[in-house]
Amino acid sequence: MRDQALSFAAAHQDNQVEELKGLLAIPSISAQPQHKGDIAGAAQWLVDHLLAIGMQRAEVMPTAGHPVVYAEWMSADKDKPTLLIYGHYDVQPADPLELWHSDPFKAEVRGQNLYGRGASDDKGQIFIHVKAVEAYLKSSGKLPVNVKFIIEGEEEIGGPSLDPFIEQNAGLLASNVALISDTGMPQPDLPALTYALRGLCYMEIEVTGPRRDLHSGSFGGAVYNPIQALSEIIVRLKDEHGHILIPGFYDRVRPLEDEERASLATVPFDDGVFCAEAGISSTWGEEGYTVLEQVTARPTLDCNGIWGGYTGEGSKTVLPSKASAKISMRLVPDQDHEEIGQLFGSYVIKVAPPQVQVKVKSLHGGRPAIVERNSYPIRAAATALERAFNRRPAFVREGGSIPVVSTLKRVLGTPTVLMGFGLSDDNLHSPNEKFYLPNFYRGIQASIHFLDELAKA
Amino acid sequence: MRDQALSFAAAHQDNQVEELKGLLAIPSISAQPQHKGDIAGAAQWLVDHLLAIGMQRAEVMPTAGHPVVYAEWMSADKDKPTLLIYGHYDVQPADPLELWHSDPFKAEVRGQNLYGRGASDDKGQIFIHVKAVEAYLKSSGKLPVNVKFIIEGEEEIGGPSLDPFIEQNAGLLASNVALISDTGMPQPDLPALTYALRGLCYMEIEVTGPRRDLHSGSFGGAVYNPIQALSEIIVRLKDEHGHILIPGFYDRVRPLEDEERASLATVPFDDGVFCAEAGISSTWGEEGYTVLEQVTARPTLDCNGIWGGYTGEGSKTVLPSKASAKISMRLVPDQDHEEIGQLFGSYVIKVAPPQVQVKVKSLHGGRPAIVERNSYPIRAAATALERAFNRRPAFVREGGSIPVVSTLKRVLGTPTVLMGFGLSDDNLHSPNEKFYLPNFYRGIQASIHFLDELAKA
Repeated sequence: MRDQALSFAAAHQDNQVEELKGLLAIPSISAQPQHKGDIAGAAQWLVDHLLAIGMQRAEVMPTAGHPVVYAEWMSADKDKPTLLIYGHYDVQPADPLELWHSDPFKAEVRGQNLYGRGASDDKGQIFIHVKAVEAYLKSSGKLPVNVKFIIEGEEEIGGPSLDPFIEQNAGLLASNVALISDTGMPQPDLPALTYALRGLCYMEIEVTGPRRDLHSGSFGGAVYNPIQALSEIIVRLKDEHGHILIPGFYDRVRPLEDEERASLATVPFDDGVFCAEAGISSTWGEEGYTVLEQVTARPTLDCNGIWGGYTGEGSKTVLPSKASAKISMRLVPDQDHEEIGQLFGSYVIKVAPPQVQVKVKSLHGGRPAIVERNSYPIRAAATALERAFNRRPAFVREGGSIPVVSTLKRVLGTPTVLMGFGLSDDNLHSPNEKFYLPNFYRGIQASIHFLDELAKA
Repeated sequence: MRDQALSFAAAHQDNQVEELKGLLAIPSISAQPQHKGDIAGAAQWLVDHLLAIGMQRAEVMPTAGHPVVYAEWMSADKDKPTLLIYGHYDVQPADPLELWHSDPFKAEVRGQNLYGRGASDDKGQIFIHVKAVEAYLKSSGKLPVNVKFIIEGEEEIGGPSLDPFIEQNAGLLASNVALISDTGMPQPDLPALTYALRGLCYMEIEVTGPRRDLHSGSFGGAVYNPIQALSEIIVRLKDEHGHILIPGFYDRVRPLEDEERASLATVPFDDGVFCAEAGISSTWGEEGYTVLEQVTARPTLDCNGIWGGYTGEGSKTVLPSKASAKISMRLVPDQDHEEIGQLFGSYVIKVAPPQVQVKVKSLHGGRPAIVERNSYPIRAAATALERAFNRRPAFVREGGSIPVVSTLKRVLGTPTVLMGFGLSDDNLHSPNEKFYLPNFYRGIQASIHFLDELAKA
C-alpha cells in the first residue's frame, strides 16, 4: 500500500505542482478586508479538492472570523490511530509588489523553485500532506491511519477564532497525533524535526510624568521626564551580560542538558550567515550560550516599540507627559506567560523612579511548547524523513511561537509533530516567496512514510 | 499725548480682543509644511493691520524660510530714540487636539482668559504693543519715539532665517532699544523684567541596530536592540543627582553669585504651585539649587521625544532596525550652543554600545543671554510697569530661550528689554493655551508708558 502510494506520488509530480498553482492563485490575504471573498474562495477550493482526492467528508466551517476547512477520512483498520493535520490557507499581503520578479498570485517555476505568495507559508506545505493522502487513496483506496485536516484562515493575523473553534469542536478533532508543516529545515538536504517552540509574553508600559505636556524652557530642570524614567526602566530589565533581571524570571526555565546541547551543536548553523540575514556586524546575547541556543532555546526580552513626546520633523521643546514602550519576552519550557507577565509588572513598578506613575498591561501571551523526543510519533517522523531524504533529521528548537501547538495539547491532549520543509531563504512574508520543489516532492514521500510508520504503532 | 493714548486704549478693550481673535484664527504653524499658506496669511494680516493703525510703512519681507513682517513709524521729534519691537507670528502645533476644550484656532473667552493657540505665545503679547502704538496714533496722530516692528515666522522652529535677515538688514533695523514680550510674570499682579534667558542646544539621535526590521522570534536573543541601546545612552546623560555627565558641559557656566541668589530668593515662587501647574507630586532636579534656580538659572537636559519600532495598537513582534530621540539642553551664560552640541555628540557616540550605529545631528541652537539691570531702558521699563500695575516689577531670569536677544546685541548693538505678560499656567506649547486678559489690557497701558518714558531719555 505504501509503495503504491510512493509510486503514484512520484508519477504525478507535474500534476501536484499545477494543482498547487491553482491554490496559490487565490489571494487569500487574511489581513485585508477586501480579500474576504478570496478567503472564502480558498476555503471552498480546498473543500472541493479534498473531496476530489477521496476524503469522506470536507466542509467549510464558520468561526467568528475567517472560516476553518475541516476534512476527514475515518475508515482505517480498527486499532489504527487518528492523525490530525493542521495548516493555514491564509497568506501575508504581497506588497511591495514592485519587488516581485513575477506575479505573486500567478505562481511560476524558475529553476528548482516555485515562486508565489504562500508557496512555502503555508499553502505549499499543507499541500504536501494533501498529496500524500491522495496518493494512498488513488492507488489503494484507503489510508493506513485515520486522517483529519484542520486548515485555518487567520494564522497570519493571529486571529482569535482558532482556539474557540478547537474548544467547541474538541470531539470532532479528537486525535492521537497532530502534524504541522509550517517550519523549516537547516539546509536543503537536511530534514528537521522541531521539538520545542518558544512562548510569548507581550507587555506594554505607560509612564506618566507631568499631567500634561510642559514647555521644557519653563519646567525643564525640576520635573522628572517620563522618557528618562522609561529609559531607566528598560535599562534595568537586562544586565550587560544579557541576563534578564526580573526576579523569578528564570525559575521555571528547564535547564539545557549536556546531551541536548550536544545535539543542538550538530545542527548546521553559521553565525556569519545569521549576521548577514539580520544585517548586523556582530551578535550580542546572553553569555554562556551559542547563538543558536540564544535564539531558540533561551528566553529573551526585546523592546518592540517605544514612543513619547514630539516625534515629528524638527524641534519642539516639549517636556512630555507620557512615554510608552512595548516589550515582549520569548519564553521557554516551563515558563508560564501569565506568571511572567505578573513578575514583569511587579518589577517594572518597583524599579520605576518614584516621581512618575507607571501602568503595565498585558497585550498578548502564548505558552512555550516542547514535545518528547523519544515518543513514538517523533520516532515515526524521524524514520519517515530519513527514508525520504536518505539522511537522519536534525532535532531543532524554533525561536518563534506556533500557539496552536499548545492549544492542541491543552484542549485535545494531542502531541504535535513539527515536520517543516521550508528554507531560511524562502522569503516568508517578503517579496519573491518561494518553495524549493525537490523538498515539495520529498515532503510528499516523507508524509507517505509517516502515515505508514504511524500505523505500525 | 500719553494720557490720550491711555484713554483710547482703555475705551477700546473689546475691539482689541476681537482683533486679536482674528490673528489667532490663522493656524500659522511654522513646523508643518501644510501650513505654509497660513504662515503667509498671518504675515499679510499683520501688514494690513499695521498699515490700518497708522504705521508709515509695513511689508512682508522674504527670507530663505518663512517671511518677516517689518513696519516703521519714523516721525518722532529729532532727538528721540528708536525702539525696535520684536515678536513672532508663528505658533506651535496644536496636537493633541482632543485635549483642547475649544478649537485652538477659534479663540474663545472663558472667564478672564482668552483660549487659543498663540494667545500668549506670542501673538497676544506682540499685539499688546501694536495696540499701544495704535492708541497713540489714533488719539494724537504721532508717537513719542520712533518705532520699528520686526515680527518673524520661525521662532517656534528656531528657523535659521532670522539671523541672516537681521545681518542683511542691519541699517533698516538700526535702533537704540529693543523690546520683546515673550516672557512671563511670577504672579498675575506682579510685573517682571527678565534680565537673563537660557540658550538652547537641540539634538537628535538615531540608533541603528539590524539593517532591517527583524522577527523577534527568529532573531530575538542574539541581536542588540536599538531601543535598548538608545535607553542606555539616555540613562548615561545624567546621574541620580540631576548632574549632567557630558564632559565639559559645565565648564563655561557663570556661577550664581550670593547677591544674585539673594535677589532671586525675593521673587515669589511657590514650589507647591509649580508642582500643581506641572501636574507632578514632587519636583526633581539638580541637587544644591532651588526649584526657581533649577528652571531659570541652571543648565538642564531633557528628552523631548522618542520613537522606534511598532507604535500602533496591539502587539507586533518586531525587533526594530532603528530608534530615535530628540534631546535638548537649556544653556546659561556663558555656555556656547555649538560647543555644547559637539560635546554632546562626542559623548553620545562614546557611550553607545559598540553593536549599534549612532548618528547625532543638531536640529537647533540659540545662545543664552544676560542684560545689564541698571541701564536706562531697563529703568524706563521698570517705571512703566510700576505705573500700569501699581507695583515695582520683580527682576527675574527666564528658563526659556529667545535667541534673537543675543543676535540684536551682536549685530545691531541694541540692548533688549524683556517685558513679559505671560503666566506660568498659560499652557504654552500645550493644549488649552490661554492669555489672562487683565494683563493684556495692563500690558497695553505699560507699553504706552514705556514709549513715554523712553522719550524722556
